[in-house]
Amino acid sequence: MREFDRPLVVTVGYGENIDSMKTPKPGSDFSENQLSSKTVYQGGFLEVKEDRVRLPDGKSAVREYLVHPGAVVIIPVLDDGMLVMERQYRYPLHNHFYELPAGKIEPGEDPLLCAQRELLEETGYVAQSWRYLATAYPCVAYSDERQLFYLAQGLSYRGSNPDDEEFLEVLKVELSTALGWVREGKITDGKTLTGLFWLQQVMRGEV
Amino acid sequence: MREFDRPLVVTVGYGENIDSMKTPKPGSDFSENQLSSKTVYQGGFLEVKEDRVRLPDGKSAVREYLVHPGAVVIIPVLDDGMLVMERQYRYPLHNHFYELPAGKIEPGEDPLLCAQRELLEETGYVAQSWRYLATAYPCVAYSDERQLFYLAQGLSYRGSNPDDEEFLEVLKVELSTALGWVREGKITDGKTLTGLFWLQQVMRGEV
Repeated sequence: MREFDRPLVVTVGYGENIDSMKTPKPGSDFSENQLSSKTVYQGGFLEVKEDRVRLPDGKSAVREYLVHPGAVVIIPVLDDGMLVMERQYRYPLHNHFYELPAGKIEPGEDPLLCAQRELLEETGYVAQSWRYLATAYPCVAYSDERQLFYLAQGLSYRGSNPDDEEFLEVLKVELSTALGWVREGKITDGKTLTGLFWLQQVMRGEV
Repeated sequence: MREFDRPLVVTVGYGENIDSMKTPKPGSDFSENQLSSKTVYQGGFLEVKEDRVRLPDGKSAVREYLVHPGAVVIIPVLDDGMLVMERQYRYPLHNHFYELPAGKIEPGEDPLLCAQRELLEETGYVAQSWRYLATAYPCVAYSDERQLFYLAQGLSYRGSNPDDEEFLEVLKVELSTALGWVREGKITDGKTLTGLFWLQQVMRGEV
């Protein structure tokens, strides 16, 4: 069944930066075409662009967004079924978070090699088996970040390989405990929720 | 069981902007304390801050992040069990996405009223029953965005109330179809994956 071929309702919605309204047809192309692009902020980590775009109705608007190199998220499952997770302080939210291991892809780096590097550097584990599971986009409204999710199994501990970098704690957690933490609001990190969702699908044999 | 009280491994991980390493203890406080804060980019939509912080080891570092007003994400389930979803073009990724209805919270706005407003404006539906499900943070590394998830039931169609805004298509989708779209890679929007995850927990009576 392809419900998206026969939508119940077709309407015009709510957002920002658009100058006019228009009633779209099912399956319509709402593409916005770039007229110009400029970097308006370049930090050591973040880059912001402002693009002027042509809207579907011919008018123009400005789109502001972050340029991101992409990231990997690792779901490391030990032979006894426990997950390897991290606890880390996230300054923008002034809180510690329980998270799956993750990291940014270096320029030109193969995503799988990035995942292997990050898992070892952050947690001290290497995995015999790697499986690509899914791609997700955490902030479609304002960032081009793409997250690739990998299941890592056959883990063995080699010792961490710390760089002059972030502070974090590595811990192992039962999947059922992690799901309990989701329900209790103790796990709220978006990529970790997405990763646990995918792990559930894998455990049920659905992917 | 509280696995986080007895971590398997305690190590120092990988990140950026930190000048030294340190071996943390289980349950350690890795808080970073603000020394100064300034807005380095203010667009019509995005705001970027650069804060200088004191690290746990006493050194200092710079943190760049987005300031976001917060958002609501609505999981609208019709009486026949179908989901109300949207298809929308997201310029940062130059692609159309299937998404749950969502929107930014206005200054001072009650999140539930925001959810009710956004659902009506974007889809034309009103709901008799609203249930807060969860809070998630989509980009803990570089944005303070907080997303509140609401289950909306007892839906009736009142007609959309479009503003001079975004183009989108509203459609209804079986939950099983939506989960199939996740597996096929047709649904990749982070907040939508988190919302479907939560809906699965609700359907199983686990929350």
